[in-house]
Amino acid sequence: MTIDVYWGSGSPYSWRVLLALEHKGLPYESHLLSLPMQEHKAPHMLALNPRGRVPTLKDGDYVVFESLAVLYYLDRKYPEKPLFGDTPEEGAVIMRVCCEYQAYIEPYVMRIVRALLYGNGDPHSDESTYAMHMIAGEARTIEGRLSKGPWIVGEKPGAADYMIYPGIMLLLRALALPEARELSSRFLPVEANYPALGRWLERVEALPGYARTYPPHWRS
Amino acid sequence: MTIDVYWGSGSPYSWRVLLALEHKGLPYESHLLSLPMQEHKAPHMLALNPRGRVPTLKDGDYVVFESLAVLYYLDRKYPEKPLFGDTPEEGAVIMRVCCEYQAYIEPYVMRIVRALLYGNGDPHSDESTYAMHMIAGEARTIEGRLSKGPWIVGEKPGAADYMIYPGIMLLLRALALPEARELSSRFLPVEANYPALGRWLERVEALPGYARTYPPHWRS
Repeated sequence: MTIDVYWGSGSPYSWRVLLALEHKGLPYESHLLSLPMQEHKAPHMLALNPRGRVPTLKDGDYVVFESLAVLYYLDRKYPEKPLFGDTPEEGAVIMRVCCEYQAYIEPYVMRIVRALLYGNGDPHSDESTYAMHMIAGEARTIEGRLSKGPWIVGEKPGAADYMIYPGIMLLLRALALPEARELSSRFLPVEANYPALGRWLERVEALPGYARTYPPHWRS
Repeated sequence: MTIDVYWGSGSPYSWRVLLALEHKGLPYESHLLSLPMQEHKAPHMLALNPRGRVPTLKDGDYVVFESLAVLYYLDRKYPEKPLFGDTPEEGAVIMRVCCEYQAYIEPYVMRIVRALLYGNGDPHSDESTYAMHMIAGEARTIEGRLSKGPWIVGEKPGAADYMIYPGIMLLLRALALPEARELSSRFLPVEANYPALGRWLERVEALPGYARTYPPHWRS
């Protein structure tokens, strides 16, 4: 059976799944779709995922999407090198951190990213300032975790790291823009404001296979 | 070891966990907290869950929160009577539907609920109309699933049913208010507009232990 992954460059949801596949060391066929060309909305993609979103993973005849569900699938189907820890207790902490990221951080990250990278929203609005304030608070919590250990949960990298890392990277890319200067002042440079988080970013980047997951259009 | 559940009446997140515990047939100590009295923010609760949210589950010395993570924990720790299906493939579809509910339905449900039940928002605003429109579309997808089988995924009740059911019930409670007449016109009565969904609600209500999970303050 072949694992096919359909993904988009810069999609943080896609990036998670690529990182998870590299973590497991599973061979996969990579299908990079052009999001600007709306290739993820093409009929053959809608046949796999009616929402027309990325990532979508196909394992033989089986199709799964929504990044957290893909991570869950990979871990249950291919239990070697677990993404969700070695025990139910550790696994549920990892799942909890993933859920917390999705509920309390991601909406704010995406608000900032939409305003800065997609021109959808005003980076100088009260909403943007509020979003940045919420992110800074949650980043403080993550900094606390990472000052106690090398990875978000436990002694090995796993689903919590792969859920959070791409969103942080997308946020940093957005905050590097000149029009983000005001918003980013409390957050950047990461190494100064969140030193443990800064070292963790480097640790993720040193993982085997990382280079294959990096958004191609970010290189240029 | 004792399982302690700290929960709030009417919290859809809490309701999920109670339904899951009844599904598993696990004995548990029920700790009903008064949300209006902010008992979930009391120091001993913040010691268990720094976010001061419900549900929080304590299993011996181990603490887990965020409802989906609690369901994940229960299923991995106590695999009998699975919440996430019998196979990785079925499990990941269940997880996917849970994620889809959280991403594409719950924010709209909570917007309507806040406007109608908590006076936070205007039920006659464009935002509320849009939210109701989105809910109606997603409910059509769920109706499609339920017209093919008795439960949201597969032949047995599980995590997808318990994730979605409490939110639908909260929505119906909000839509029953007189000021919701306009908003609810396309949705109610459920039995007429979404007959399979209506029968599924009755099926959930007939599950063993259901009565113990019903929000106490809704009885009066």
